[in-house]
Amino acid sequence: MRIGILGTGAVGGLYGGMLARAGHDVHFLLHSDYDHVRANGLRVDSVFGNFHLPSPQVYPSVEAMPHCDAVIVTTKTTLNHRLDAWLPEVVSEAGIVLTLQNGLNVEADIGRRVPMNRVLGGCCFLCSNKVGPGHIHHLDYGRIVMGPSVGGDGPTAVHTDGRRLLEMMRSSGIDANWTEDLATARWRKLMWNIPFNGLSVVMDASTDQIIGCKYGRDLAAKIIAEVHNGAAACGVRIDADAIDATMRHTETMVPYDSSMRLDDRHGREMEVDAIFGNPLSAVASITGKPASQIMPRVEMLYQLLSHRNRRRQHRQGS
Amino acid sequence: MRIGILGTGAVGGLYGGMLARAGHDVHFLLHSDYDHVRANGLRVDSVFGNFHLPSPQVYPSVEAMPHCDAVIVTTKTTLNHRLDAWLPEVVSEAGIVLTLQNGLNVEADIGRRVPMNRVLGGCCFLCSNKVGPGHIHHLDYGRIVMGPSVGGDGPTAVHTDGRRLLEMMRSSGIDANWTEDLATARWRKLMWNIPFNGLSVVMDASTDQIIGCKYGRDLAAKIIAEVHNGAAACGVRIDADAIDATMRHTETMVPYDSSMRLDDRHGREMEVDAIFGNPLSAVASITGKPASQIMPRVEMLYQLLSHRNRRRQHRQGS
Repeated sequence: MRIGILGTGAVGGLYGGMLARAGHDVHFLLHSDYDHVRANGLRVDSVFGNFHLPSPQVYPSVEAMPHCDAVIVTTKTTLNHRLDAWLPEVVSEAGIVLTLQNGLNVEADIGRRVPMNRVLGGCCFLCSNKVGPGHIHHLDYGRIVMGPSVGGDGPTAVHTDGRRLLEMMRSSGIDANWTEDLATARWRKLMWNIPFNGLSVVMDASTDQIIGCKYGRDLAAKIIAEVHNGAAACGVRIDADAIDATMRHTETMVPYDSSMRLDDRHGREMEVDAIFGNPLSAVASITGKPASQIMPRVEMLYQLLSHRNRRRQHRQGS
Repeated sequence: MRIGILGTGAVGGLYGGMLARAGHDVHFLLHSDYDHVRANGLRVDSVFGNFHLPSPQVYPSVEAMPHCDAVIVTTKTTLNHRLDAWLPEVVSEAGIVLTLQNGLNVEADIGRRVPMNRVLGGCCFLCSNKVGPGHIHHLDYGRIVMGPSVGGDGPTAVHTDGRRLLEMMRSSGIDANWTEDLATARWRKLMWNIPFNGLSVVMDASTDQIIGCKYGRDLAAKIIAEVHNGAAACGVRIDADAIDATMRHTETMVPYDSSMRLDDRHGREMEVDAIFGNPLSAVASITGKPASQIMPRVEMLYQLLSHRNRRRQHRQGS
């Protein structure tokens, strides 16, 4: 099974690197780091063990890549408008695509080019950053929960080839887990991402600063509850204990700057549509009512962050 | 009628200065600017006409001031904990107090020391800044709407002496207007102050930047509607047209940095409790339900701004 990695950063560099280290046939798309990695290889400092791939199979464009049987998408969702051009170049005739991107319904962005019964989604629970060209620093966690993007009767490519990919990942040392209920996994992750990505930017605060103050703590708890209600409105039942559990989990984390805060600090576009806009749209479309009735604070975060993205774009003249 | 001005800044310096210019017996409390004003006088550049008072009656402390028949409070509400010590020093036996401070229920802070039937409140609609020691720059508007803090049967000190003060203000060129419905005036002003003071800080934006972006505009409109609903919950009926009118009014304003944004930029504590906390408390106490049911976004602004105040306080070690 030939594997393609679109986006060799914190996520794609780590997991793709682990697959390649285990001897699998992995092909990496790179942009700004291409020359560096071609000359120096890929370096991964990981809590799972450090390693260096001296000469990974790297490409500066999708046109240069071979067709792959499994493509793992790990670019930022802010680049998803480019998938329409990329996917036909890199996905083989019967190939599957696994998106490990943040947010909700990002599988639909794949589905514009690849039949949904060959699309998988996955949630990553990890702290990992790209700290330099071709240099990934994986600090903590690492679990993936992945599964088919849509339910179906009996085994299809997404099941057979998807599970084959899962086994390759597991035998490469990746803590990958199967789910037939991707929606629940995605909403469960949003219960953390929405409050803590959003507030970290709007409050200019790390997770410990947010919950270390009674105002931030109460606000975060109310936002978590809103996401829980939004999931329920979409037919996704998550145990009510998950609200408290999310808060307790955040207390035990090391002080952490969310990926959105890092994007903001480095002047990069934030993944506002995937993480905030898509859940709001899903709730509105399923309930037939404005999402703000169920998630007013989530909508307010969406508006504050969208304004911030837009002003940055304007300043950068793009 | 001897008049005392507590807080000789953008508001007290302008209105107190106009009263003194007209020949009234006005006594000014100053802190950091005392020496400068004693040496150089008070300078007011105003759209109503520039003027300079070469030797106003100024004092470095309330203890040094004479007892006054009418005390006008124009300090920031963040100093209101000091009124308990100040008022007994400066208010004469039967004296009245007019607070021109921002927010809701700030009259209650006066009422801890002065009977409420001698307390008036007023809303100022003006753009005015202190631009240097003893130097006020009044850019636009200037109307005051003032009235008794509590209703009552028949004329009391708050009516007789209050109206006398009003006439002195009017004959000094101040656009002062009487109301028997202070609550409506205060809530009407909050319909601007809550969205635009709050968002200007949280979005780091001027009024034109807030409403010039679809996200900021929609958010501001929803917050204005929440304040309107909060007023209704407190028995204050404001015409529903006021929601659109507030937005249209803001469109026609010159781009303006709210006083809260200026406080934030200059590292001063923001008036979060008076402008956000008190309206939330009023709604909760009158409805018997969490205010967030009616004003979730206002509560979120309150929490974001309180967090910001607290972190600044922490950094400044006070």
